[in-house]
Amino acid sequence: MLHASARALKYFSALGICATIAVGTLYVTKSAAQTDNKVQSQAQSDASPIYGITIPAGYRDWRLISVNHLAGGNVKQLRAQLGNDIAIKALREGTLPFPDGTVIAALHWNETSLDENDRVLATGFPDAGLQSFVAGSAVNVQFMVKDSKKYAATGGWGFADFTNGKPGDEALHKTCFPCHVPAKGRDYVFAHYAPTP
Amino acid sequence: MLHASARALKYFSALGICATIAVGTLYVTKSAAQTDNKVQSQAQSDASPIYGITIPAGYRDWRLISVNHLAGGNVKQLRAQLGNDIAIKALREGTLPFPDGTVIAALHWNETSLDENDRVLATGFPDAGLQSFVAGSAVNVQFMVKDSKKYAATGGWGFADFTNGKPGDEALHKTCFPCHVPAKGRDYVFAHYAPTP
Repeated sequence: MLHASARALKYFSALGICATIAVGTLYVTKSAAQTDNKVQSQAQSDASPIYGITIPAGYRDWRLISVNHLAGGNVKQLRAQLGNDIAIKALREGTLPFPDGTVIAALHWNETSLDENDRVLATGFPDAGLQSFVAGSAVNVQFMVKDSKKYAATGGWGFADFTNGKPGDEALHKTCFPCHVPAKGRDYVFAHYAPTP
Repeated sequence: MLHASARALKYFSALGICATIAVGTLYVTKSAAQTDNKVQSQAQSDASPIYGITIPAGYRDWRLISVNHLAGGNVKQLRAQLGNDIAIKALREGTLPFPDGTVIAALHWNETSLDENDRVLATGFPDAGLQSFVAGSAVNVQFMVKDSKKYAATGGWGFADFTNGKPGDEALHKTCFPCHVPAKGRDYVFAHYAPTP
């Protein structure tokens, strides 16, 4: 049994959001079987179980949806949600349900502190009791991909969860959709678009 | 005297980072003096004192540098730093000092909770003691603009701090550069580029 906090690291990541780009099908022809099997095996190992989603190229360049903070027990994470162009347009215009092609990425990091920040707080605001934490080491990244036909059984969304570039197992991916059900009223997306200051 | 936490909201925002785009000079010709004065006054009221920096158009679309979290007393903020193309390139390549034209934006929000998130935590992880907070209302936005000649007296950086689209006063802006001195070793930039999970 997984420790509750460890489970939370995975599952509740879904709050940041969960799912990926539906690029590259895994279909392989039967000619040149050996080579194809190798390609297929490689492709499968890089794709999420159930949904067959791989990490979308260049997702780190997508625009910011929002940020969040998850804490409790041993879990202290900083998180950001990024969206592809379709996602950002839909969020800004309040379009529900999200259009097919929407992809939302949830990036999760362990919190850490920085000496420079601590020095500013200690000298500039000695009585304020302030603490600063920044994004440290990467924990995982998750994707939600909207394809209302392909993923009809899960609210039109495919999900993917990667740690160090590798997808989690099938048991993990079975938890994605149920976790998102409380956000059904927003087409299963937890993240709200953060206002522009 | 400002309450320490209120001061921190402003000053320590500098940790997120502080400064703006050096677009649009305030120079106005002397012809048609009345109209020009009006234009000048309008322009000045939208620019930061000391540095003459205005809010760069489209900064909300810039790419993500990192996220952070500031807490203590009444202050509970979630923050994100975004960079223009020059900033992102420099951060990814570890270029120091940052090239002229670098602009870094620091967006600050009050933390808030979401019912959907709380429901997931309460039902899915009742024993984990997890709490989730997301970006709520906007607090302010700050910019750092690199222009090694124009801002030679302040490490090559100009600074700007806006609340509801209006720049803070001169006293506030006098605090920007001294606050960044502890990060001198990284060309006065606190934010580190968050790794790609």
